[in-house]
Amino acid sequence: MRLRMESFVKGLQSRIVADIESIDGKQFSRTTWQRKEGGEGITCVLQDGNVFEKAGVGISIVYGQLPKAAVEQMRHDRGKDISADGPVPFFAAGISLVMHPHNPNAPTVHMNYRYFEIENPDGSPRLAWFGGGSDLTPSYLFEEDAIHFHQVIKDGCEKYDKKYYSTFKQWCDKYFYIKHRGESRGIGGIFFDDLDDKPTEELFSFIKEMGNRFSQSYIPIVKKRMNMKFTEEMKEWQQIRRGRYVEFNLVCDRGTKFGLQTPGARIEAILMTLPLTARWEYMYTPKVNSTEADLEEVLKNPRDWIPLD
Amino acid sequence: MRLRMESFVKGLQSRIVADIESIDGKQFSRTTWQRKEGGEGITCVLQDGNVFEKAGVGISIVYGQLPKAAVEQMRHDRGKDISADGPVPFFAAGISLVMHPHNPNAPTVHMNYRYFEIENPDGSPRLAWFGGGSDLTPSYLFEEDAIHFHQVIKDGCEKYDKKYYSTFKQWCDKYFYIKHRGESRGIGGIFFDDLDDKPTEELFSFIKEMGNRFSQSYIPIVKKRMNMKFTEEMKEWQQIRRGRYVEFNLVCDRGTKFGLQTPGARIEAILMTLPLTARWEYMYTPKVNSTEADLEEVLKNPRDWIPLD
Repeated sequence: MRLRMESFVKGLQSRIVADIESIDGKQFSRTTWQRKEGGEGITCVLQDGNVFEKAGVGISIVYGQLPKAAVEQMRHDRGKDISADGPVPFFAAGISLVMHPHNPNAPTVHMNYRYFEIENPDGSPRLAWFGGGSDLTPSYLFEEDAIHFHQVIKDGCEKYDKKYYSTFKQWCDKYFYIKHRGESRGIGGIFFDDLDDKPTEELFSFIKEMGNRFSQSYIPIVKKRMNMKFTEEMKEWQQIRRGRYVEFNLVCDRGTKFGLQTPGARIEAILMTLPLTARWEYMYTPKVNSTEADLEEVLKNPRDWIPLD
Repeated sequence: MRLRMESFVKGLQSRIVADIESIDGKQFSRTTWQRKEGGEGITCVLQDGNVFEKAGVGISIVYGQLPKAAVEQMRHDRGKDISADGPVPFFAAGISLVMHPHNPNAPTVHMNYRYFEIENPDGSPRLAWFGGGSDLTPSYLFEEDAIHFHQVIKDGCEKYDKKYYSTFKQWCDKYFYIKHRGESRGIGGIFFDDLDDKPTEELFSFIKEMGNRFSQSYIPIVKKRMNMKFTEEMKEWQQIRRGRYVEFNLVCDRGTKFGLQTPGARIEAILMTLPLTARWEYMYTPKVNSTEADLEEVLKNPRDWIPLD
């Protein structure tokens, strides 16, 4: 599983980078890094492109020993037995991406899929699980885009489990909620953690399915929006939404907080998800009945873009 | 003490607002608010001014009942006895300000002074203390500015206690440290918490002295720098520094975290301290021997701008 997951995230990263480069026309910069304690990663970033303000696609394959407390923090359902006296041998492989387009009509997208394994002292796997998801963060709401994004994801989910989409869609709305603002970061998608309810092989197929659907879920949307006309006011609203994105990532996101607290973590790779630019205006309120107010309404009251079963 | 502290922060806010308006030429917007559970505040914000990108001066006078856990969190030295069975009657009055100038040569400044009191059930004061400080965050280092800022503060401290400046200067360097970046937010100033080592009257005089020194510590600096020429590259560096300011406030600052977690808090007043605009560039590194690298050096190795005793 380890080698196949590694090979999957590497291949997916290459394909997504190529897809984005073909739209943007500018090349990603590519940094490979080694982790002293074991493992490696590749961080690809496109900055100040023609279409994208900032786009990052990172993979990492890391292993070694984790303190028990850290392992427990990596699982959502802490009740599960991870009994150990000392550090726990672990393996983790994942892909993570965020894309922030220039055009305020084109939404920001985030995707992350990861495999995690902890071992018995003899090297046999003790627990293995997957986590991840993908979600969309528009500054301006195009319902057809929200429906398209959710539909591509739902179709992938349904191949594996009739309950996955509705469960993970609701989990996503709950996870990407900016509590202090009383609103969601975006219009959702799916999110899940600790996925181990089926044989690992079957879950791996599901993860591959979802990862491979990324371009299909996002690229038609960005192509449709990237050349639309926009005003300075629209750009300003986008910058304010970027500020909220920063607030979520720095204040609420479990992964970012975990990363920032980890000694020796690659800070630049963790904060690659932040937008190139952001804005905080005191007491900014969209005009009544404006398209900006429409978005706010949806962020305060998450919608089912496709009827749930 | 309560009425006099209230009157002091109100007066100081008015004077600072007037001083800043006389430099900027644009007026602050002024919002007064009431706290349902007891108290009120005035938030003054100047946005997109001629000299300042964003400047906020807020005061609050709040009182009521606080859960014991919240009271304990408000004091740095938790060891002190705040024994109580139920909620604790409290009173708090403070002034808080942050100014972000447009010109990258002109530094951002922050100041906060607050008085806190908890009562016995019969209304007699049980514990009273002061907290606060003031610190400077330049994008470009002018040593004479750093020395001036620290000197004005040191002179005020020395009137009250020979040890205050060196103790609070080091506390400031420690508090405003962005751990995940391995650097300080700025070039320091003073910071202290739980100040109750002298009679309350004497401490109140000290707090007044320090608050009243704000304009003298900062305005000569901003006047000297606000019309200096700057390049687009300098503006970009300033925006990157603003990003670090956001990181400190959202990830590290105890006050902001406490505020964001408090139900019913005025989020806009708490986040008034964020800059109007900020920027995150992947893997940005200043050129060797550049003025940007000079600043970074000082942020990584805090300096004693005035020899400590």
